Amino acid sequence: MKLEASATPRVADGRDFPELAVPVVDGAVHAEIYHWAADIFPICRSLTGEGVRKTLGYLQNIVPGITLHEVPTGTRCFDWEIPHEWNIREAFLLGPDGEKVVDFNNSNLHVVGYSLAVDTELDLEELQEHLYSSEDQPDAIPYVTSYYKPRWGFCLPHRTRQQLKPGRYRAVIDASHTNGALSYADYILKGETSEEILLSTYVCHPSMANNEVSGPVVMTALARWLSSLPERRYTYRFVWVPETLGAIAYLSRNIRAMKAQTRAGFIVTCVGDDRGFSFLPSRHGNTLADRVARQVLSETHPQYREYSFLDRGSDERQYCAPGVDLPVASIMRSKYGTYPEYHTSLDDLSMISASGLGGSYETYRQVLTLLEHNHRYRVTTICEPRLGIRNLYPDLQRKEISDDVVPILNLLAYADGDRDLIGLCEITKVRFRDAVPLLRALHREGLVERVPE
Amino acid sequence: MKLEASATPRVADGRDFPELAVPVVDGAVHAEIYHWAADIFPICRSLTGEGVRKTLGYLQNIVPGITLHEVPTGTRCFDWEIPHEWNIREAFLLGPDGEKVVDFNNSNLHVVGYSLAVDTELDLEELQEHLYSSEDQPDAIPYVTSYYKPRWGFCLPHRTRQQLKPGRYRAVIDASHTNGALSYADYILKGETSEEILLSTYVCHPSMANNEVSGPVVMTALARWLSSLPERRYTYRFVWVPETLGAIAYLSRNIRAMKAQTRAGFIVTCVGDDRGFSFLPSRHGNTLADRVARQVLSETHPQYREYSFLDRGSDERQYCAPGVDLPVASIMRSKYGTYPEYHTSLDDLSMISASGLGGSYETYRQVLTLLEHNHRYRVTTICEPRLGIRNLYPDLQRKEISDDVVPILNLLAYADGDRDLIGLCEITKVRFRDAVPLLRALHREGLVERVPE
Amino acid sequence: MKLEASATPRVADGRDFPELAVPVVDGAVHAEIYHWAADIFPICRSLTGEGVRKTLGYLQNIVPGITLHEVPTGTRCFDWEIPHEWNIREAFLLGPDGEKVVDFNNSNLHVVGYSLAVDTELDLEELQEHLYSSEDQPDAIPYVTSYYKPRWGFCLPHRTRQQLKPGRYRAVIDASHTNGALSYADYILKGETSEEILLSTYVCHPSMANNEVSGPVVMTALARWLSSLPERRYTYRFVWVPETLGAIAYLSRNIRAMKAQTRAGFIVTCVGDDRGFSFLPSRHGNTLADRVARQVLSETHPQYREYSFLDRGSDERQYCAPGVDLPVASIMRSKYGTYPEYHTSLDDLSMISASGLGGSYETYRQVLTLLEHNHRYRVTTICEPRLGIRNLYPDLQRKEISDDVVPILNLLAYADGDRDLIGLCEITKVRFRDAVPLLRALHREGLVERVPE
Repeated sequence: MKLEASATPRVADGRDFPELAVPVVDGAVHAEIYHWAADIFPICRSLTGEGVRKTLGYLQNIVPGITLHEVPTGTRCFDWEIPHEWNIREAFLLGPDGEKVVDFNNSNLHVVGYSLAVDTELDLEELQEHLYSSEDQPDAIPYVTSYYKPRWGFCLPHRTRQQLKPGRYRAVIDASHTNGALSYADYILKGETSEEILLSTYVCHPSMANNEVSGPVVMTALARWLSSLPERRYTYRFVWVPETLGAIAYLSRNIRAMKAQTRAGFIVTCVGDDRGFSFLPSRHGNTLADRVARQVLSETHPQYREYSFLDRGSDERQYCAPGVDLPVASIMRSKYGTYPEYHTSLDDLSMISASGLGGSYETYRQVLTLLEHNHRYRVTTICEPRLGIRNLYPDLQRKEISDDVVPILNLLAYADGDRDLIGLCEITKVRFRDAVPLLRALHREGLVERVPE
Repeated sequence: MKLEASATPRVADGRDFPELAVPVVDGAVHAEIYHWAADIFPICRSLTGEGVRKTLGYLQNIVPGITLHEVPTGTRCFDWEIPHEWNIREAFLLGPDGEKVVDFNNSNLHVVGYSLAVDTELDLEELQEHLYSSEDQPDAIPYVTSYYKPRWGFCLPHRTRQQLKPGRYRAVIDASHTNGALSYADYILKGETSEEILLSTYVCHPSMANNEVSGPVVMTALARWLSSLPERRYTYRFVWVPETLGAIAYLSRNIRAMKAQTRAGFIVTCVGDDRGFSFLPSRHGNTLADRVARQVLSETHPQYREYSFLDRGSDERQYCAPGVDLPVASIMRSKYGTYPEYHTSLDDLSMISASGLGGSYETYRQVLTLLEHNHRYRVTTICEPRLGIRNLYPDLQRKEISDDVVPILNLLAYADGDRDLIGLCEITKVRFRDAVPLLRALHREGLVERVPE
Repeated sequence: MKLEASATPRVADGRDFPELAVPVVDGAVHAEIYHWAADIFPICRSLTGEGVRKTLGYLQNIVPGITLHEVPTGTRCFDWEIPHEWNIREAFLLGPDGEKVVDFNNSNLHVVGYSLAVDTELDLEELQEHLYSSEDQPDAIPYVTSYYKPRWGFCLPHRTRQQLKPGRYRAVIDASHTNGALSYADYILKGETSEEILLSTYVCHPSMANNEVSGPVVMTALARWLSSLPERRYTYRFVWVPETLGAIAYLSRNIRAMKAQTRAGFIVTCVGDDRGFSFLPSRHGNTLADRVARQVLSETHPQYREYSFLDRGSDERQYCAPGVDLPVASIMRSKYGTYPEYHTSLDDLSMISASGLGGSYETYRQVLTLLEHNHRYRVTTICEPRLGIRNLYPDLQRKEISDDVVPILNLLAYADGDRDLIGLCEITKVRFRDAVPLLRALHREGLVERVPE
C-alpha cells in the first residue's frame, strides 16, 4: 500500500470480480438426481465387469464429456495388480424340495462378490460354510466380497437361513473370471487456469443407495452444472472409479499431473439420505479443501459432525497417502460405517430422497462457488473510505452504527490482501453468501481490488 | 552465554536499571481530573468549530506543550474532504402559546449536530419530521448528527415530544457553515529514543461525560505525569482529534513518522465511570499494546471484559486500518455502545466520578510504566546463583522452599534473554509490580543484565 | 518419495529395525530394588561426608561401572564454592535427670544438617532456640539443614519437645567441618552413537525413603538393565550427586559434553510410593524428554498429574537453567513437597514398596525403550500396499474394516518420514507398545523403512 494521500481511490487493477453468483436452490434438479439414482440402483456392479461399464455409460448420456477407460487384467498399479474381470449371469440355491430358497434375480447382494462359478449339490451342513448372514440384522442381506481369495458363497437374511430345512441343496453360480479390464471414467472440464479441483466417487457396489449410487449421481449433476457455466476459474477433474483399486489405478496413470495441479478435492460419497451432514478432513486437516468445507458447512449446516482422518474409509486413503498427499476431504450425509443400513440390503432407495441428494448437491455447489471466489482482496484507500457518498452508509448518525453497515466495515477492516475470502469470512464472521455481494459492491466502487495470485 | 565456570557473576553490562518506580495511587490527582471534566463538560463541541478550540485551549493551560493545529475546509485527507466549519449561537423552538418548548441553552444536545440555520414557522405535523426522540428512553435527549447531509432538527425527550400541543411552531437555529478549519491538538514529549507510544482521544461530542470528556482529561493528566518524569525511554505522542475525520486528517499529515516509530498505542475513551474495565484489542490482537494491556489488566482488574476487534468503534478504525496498521488498542471502563446512557443526555457528570477517572488514570500509568520497563533480561551466571550470600534466600532449609523466594527463583529460571518483561511475567505468574523490585535487586547484585535492544 | 509406479515395494534401506522388545514386568527385580533401598536407608548422608561415599559404594557393588569422584573443599563451581566436608559421629541431648531425651543413634534426622560441634550445658529456655519441631506433625522429626550459616541444633517431635522438663541440659554434637570434598558418582554406558540420555538422582538426605533412597536404587536398576542389553542406540549418562551443589559441580566439569550430546534427560526422584504418577516438564516443556514421558504416561498411567515447571524443586533447576538448557524432565510418584510425610521422619521405609519402586522402574524402562525406538519411518509404496497377500489384512470383506487392521492402516497413513515414533503414536492413537511389533512386521515386509537421521 502506498502512503500518499490520494484524492480518490486508486483505479482498481482491472481484474474483474467473478461473475458467478451464489447458487440458489434448484428443486427440479433434485428430483432429476433421484431419478438417475433409481435408474442405476438395480445394476450389479463389482470391482470389475459389465455392471461398472453400464453404470458409467448411463452417466455419460447425461454428461457427454465423460470418458470411459479400461485397465487390462494383469496391469501393475503401484503395489497392486488388476485381477481377472468378474461377470455373473445367474445364481440360485435350490432347497431339498426343489424350491429356490435364494435367487440372485431378487437381489444381487445374494452372491458374495467375485464368487467362483459353481454348480454342485451338498448337504445343509456343508452348505453352511458358504452362507453369510447377520444375527444382529436378521431381515437384511449383508454385503460381502472376496476379491482376492477364491471363494463362493451366498448372502441371505438370518431369518431365512434359520428356516432352511435339513437335506440336500443345489448351489449354482454362473459367473466367469476372465482376462478383461477394470473400468473407470473421468471428465476434465477446462477452466481459466490449469489449477484443478478434484471430485471423485466410486462405482463398485451392487444395489445399495446411500453408500453407492448417491455419489455418482450427485457428482454427475455437479459436472453438468459446472459445464453449463460461461466461465470457470479452475479446471475440474471428475473421477468415477471402483473404490480402492480403481483409485490406485487412476493415480498410477495420473499422479504427476494431479500432484502438480490439484488445489482441493472431495470424495463424493454417502450423499443421499436426509440425516445431518458430516465432514471427514484430509490427512493434513488444514488444506484448502478442509477450509472451504468447514466454512460452507458452518454457514449452512452448523450442526454438522466433524470426524477425524482416523475415521476415513474411502479413496482419501489413496489420495491422501504419504507421497501422494493431495488435499482431499469429504462432505457426506450419513457417513459409511456409521448408520445401521450400511452395507446391507436395507441401504435401498428408501434410504435416499430428492431432498437428501439435493441438499448435498447444493452444499457442494456452495463449496465450489466459494472456491471460484476465493481470491485475496485488499482495500484501495488509506483509512476507511467515505461510504456515505457511495450510498453504503447511513447519512444520519444516531445511537449505534447500523447493523447493516457492520459487515461492510468489517470486510474493509480485514481486506488487507493477506487473507483469502475464506479467511476474510472466518475472521469477520460474515457469511460467504453475504460477503460476495458486498465485496462486489465495494469492487464496483473501486474500494477493494483483487490481489494478483 | 559463555560456558566457562566464572568465579563470580560477570559484571553487568553497564545498562542501568530504569529508575521509574511502579506508581502508587494518587487520589489528589483523581479529584483534579474530575474538576477538569466538569469544566469542559458544558462546551458545545462538534466535528469542527469554536467548541473544539475552546476545549483544546483549556487543556493547553494544564499542559503548555500541547499544540493546536487547523486543517482548512476543503483539504483532501485520503478519501475524505474537510467540510465547512459549523458554529452555533442559539436555537429554540417556540410553541403555539409562544413558550420555549425546546432551548439549546438548556442542553446543546437539543440540536442535531451540523444543523442548517433556520428561522421558520410550521405546523406540528410538519415539525415532526425534524424531531428526534427515543421511545425506549423517554426522559433522555438523544445525540444525533448529520455531518454530511444538509438537515436541520431538534432532539428532545420523548415524553416532552408527546406533550407538544397541535398548532403553529417557530423553529430557530442560529448556526453557520463557513469556510474554516477542523481543529486538533497534539503534544510530542521526547524520550531517550525516537520510538513512540501513541495516546489518542477525541473532542467532538457536545455535553456528554463518559463518552467524551473522560478521555481528554485522563489523557491530559497522563501527559502531565509523564512530562514530570526526569527521563523517559519512549517518546510519547498525544493526540486530541475529532473522531474519525480528525484521526484521518491527523494520519494524512503524520502517517510516515507514525508507521516508522510507533511501538504501542491506545485510544483513551470511555474512562470515566465506576463500572468494570474493558479491553478492545488491536486488529492483529497480539501487538505490544495488546500484550501490555492484558498483563496490567489481568493483574489489577482480572475480571475485565475483553471485546473483539469486531466490536470496535473509535479511532482504532483508522489507526489499525490495513496499510496503516499501527499497534493500537483501547482500555476502557464502560465501552461505547454498551451502556444505557450512551449517546444521550443521561451520559452526564453523574455518570463519572473522581474514582472512576482516577482508576483509569492509574491503570494507564501502570501500562506506561510496564512499557518503560519492558526490556529483556538474562542471568549472568551458569546454574542458579548463590542467593543466600546476597540475603536473597533463607539460610535455614526446612520443609518447603519459602514462598518469598519462589518468585525470584522463577524470574531467574526464565530470564534467558529471549523474553521481554511482559513475557517473563506471563510465564512466571509474577506480577509486574513485584517483578520490577525483584529484578532491580538482582540487577544490583550483578545477577541479571539487560539485553541490548 | 519418487513417483514412478514401482512393481514392488522398494527394497528397504538396510537399516535394521531395533531388536529391543517392549519390556515386560519383572517382579523379581522389584523386590531386589526394595532390598537395596532398605540397605542404604539407615546411612547418614548430607551434602558431603562419608555417608555419601558409603551410599555410592553400595551402588557400585551392584553396577561395577559406577565411578566415584571428589570435588575438593574450596573449589569454585560457577557462582558456588565447595564448603568444608561435614562428618558426624555422635549427638545427644541429656535432660535434667541425666536421661538421653534426644539421641542421634535413634534417627539421624535428630541433628540439623551441617551442625557445628558442641558440648555445652544450658537451661531449657536457652536450648529452645536450638530446637526444631513441627506443631502440625507433632509425632514427626522434621528434616532441617543449615549448610551455609554456622549453627547447631536438634530436631525432634513436637510432642517430645512439649514434655521437656525445665532445668539444665547438656547438648553434645560430635561433628567435624574439615577440608575434604564433595563426593558424587557417574556411569557412562556407551551406545552406538555419542548422543546421550541423561539420568540423574541425588544422594544427600539422611534417612528418608521416597524423597531420597528411591531415586538412587531405581536408577541403579535401570543402569543394570541397560548395561545388560546387547546393544543400545544411545549413550547413557547416569549421575548420582548431592542435590543442587552436586549438580552444579557436575555441570561445571561436564557442561560442554552434556550440552553437545544430551537428547533427553530425567531426574529420577520420589519414585518409591504406591500413589499415582506425576510429571514435571522441562523448562521449555516440549523437548524430547517431555514428549516421550507424556506418551508413556498417557498409555500406562493416563490419570497421571502434570505439574508446571514453576513447581520444580530438584536438579532440573540447574540442568534447565538458562544457558544450560538441557532437555530434562521428571517422572515421579508422589512429588516432593506435595505429600504429608515429605521431609520428615515419616518418610520412612513404610512409605515405599517393591510395587511402588517397581512401577517406577517399569515406567522408566518404557520411556527408555521408546527413546531407543524413536526413529522416523516412511512407507515405501505409493498408495496403500496390498496387506492381504502379506497376511496383514482379512481376505473377506464384511460390514466394517476389522478393528485389528485399523492400527496398521493408520500407521501406514502417517508414516510419511516427517514424524518420529512418538509423533506417529500421538496422531494415530496407537500405543507405542502396539506400534513397535506392527512396524516391525511392516519393516520385515519391506513396506516401511527408517529415515536416515
